[in-house]
Amino acid sequence: MSTPNRFAILVAGGSGTRMGAGQPKQFLELLGEPVLLHTLRRFAETSLGVQQFVVVLPPDQFDTWHHLCTRHQVAIPHAVVGGGHSRWASVRNGLKHLATYTEGIVAVHDGVRPLVSAAVIENTYAAAAEHGAAIAAVVPKDSVRGLSKEGSYAIDRSRLRLVQTPQCFDLELLRRAYRLPELPTFTDDASVVEDLHPIHLVEGDYRNLKITTPEDMLLAEAILRSR
Amino acid sequence: MSTPNRFAILVAGGSGTRMGAGQPKQFLELLGEPVLLHTLRRFAETSLGVQQFVVVLPPDQFDTWHHLCTRHQVAIPHAVVGGGHSRWASVRNGLKHLATYTEGIVAVHDGVRPLVSAAVIENTYAAAAEHGAAIAAVVPKDSVRGLSKEGSYAIDRSRLRLVQTPQCFDLELLRRAYRLPELPTFTDDASVVEDLHPIHLVEGDYRNLKITTPEDMLLAEAILRSR
Repeated sequence: MSTPNRFAILVAGGSGTRMGAGQPKQFLELLGEPVLLHTLRRFAETSLGVQQFVVVLPPDQFDTWHHLCTRHQVAIPHAVVGGGHSRWASVRNGLKHLATYTEGIVAVHDGVRPLVSAAVIENTYAAAAEHGAAIAAVVPKDSVRGLSKEGSYAIDRSRLRLVQTPQCFDLELLRRAYRLPELPTFTDDASVVEDLHPIHLVEGDYRNLKITTPEDMLLAEAILRSR
Repeated sequence: MSTPNRFAILVAGGSGTRMGAGQPKQFLELLGEPVLLHTLRRFAETSLGVQQFVVVLPPDQFDTWHHLCTRHQVAIPHAVVGGGHSRWASVRNGLKHLATYTEGIVAVHDGVRPLVSAAVIENTYAAAAEHGAAIAAVVPKDSVRGLSKEGSYAIDRSRLRLVQTPQCFDLELLRRAYRLPELPTFTDDASVVEDLHPIHLVEGDYRNLKITTPEDMLLAEAILRSR
């Protein structure tokens, strides 16, 4: 079997309001480089060979990103595509940019998961090549409870997974899934695809955190420093 | 209503093998003080007035803890009780030490959750005083999937909670629960109590992390430094 084409859509929709940092979290600096640039580098540094990178950003952030790429001398070719009103719409826009390709594996990855390891990226692409749809996920570290009318009840956490990205799919499968109408239950790409195809789970990494809160920035810095 | 007696059982059973640090994680230094001492201070610093602290440790760590308390001039009175073969047995041993008390609210807390806030401690004691059983918990930040025969399926994370400590209970209720035989499904005290009494959930804190991996130490240090 020949190696399939590989594509990566990096989705960054943050406006920065939740971080209280006055800046979208994808542009916050981690050891001197913006979060989103770290993320792009992680994918570019794998030995896989990604054919085409698509970075999805709110259109009013294009200029900032362009300036940052110039300042940091980014030599990784990538397309920049405008995000939509939701994550779903943003990924769909990213996918449209790949319209000329007929086959391959596409990774969708949060632009604000800058610590993803090469191993997790490679394993997820490989599992999607085999199974059609594969996502990185980890077992919850804590006990888990479900809400009930009376209060709450214990759930066996070994039967649960916390979902991360990358989420990798056969290109044509992801296209078919994104032709269906948007639903409020779509929280990630696995939920968009799952009615069409089983979702294979790949072992993620606890360090592959999504930058959401100021503490996440502290942890990300500490992890990068320790490498 | 008069203020109920308040007790705290801090459980530290770690042997250090999982951290690869050659030292139990409760004794690792965070900004110059052992993790377990930070945890003890968090409870002692609340405005609540905890009557009696019980620290549960493997008996072969008593000497180390005693030396650490001397070196760090710990002036917080607390009993030290030997842990058992499991978390359940350790909490039961801690509870036995409170045998002379007839009523009150007892908090069980992981000795390796040194970043718990005063607000979370106070809210959990207060909720247990009102509801009989209350635990700190947070909504998962990530999407959640359940394992199935075909692969996995999306679960609404807003109906789930990741369990933390403190877990606070009416003293007599917790005693009754610990008279029942140990079950393999006991992952925390809520699971021990839940067949006897509904478990009320209190808003925890994402910073209230349990020190499990080396990254957790990095994050804990970064959070303490930023305070």
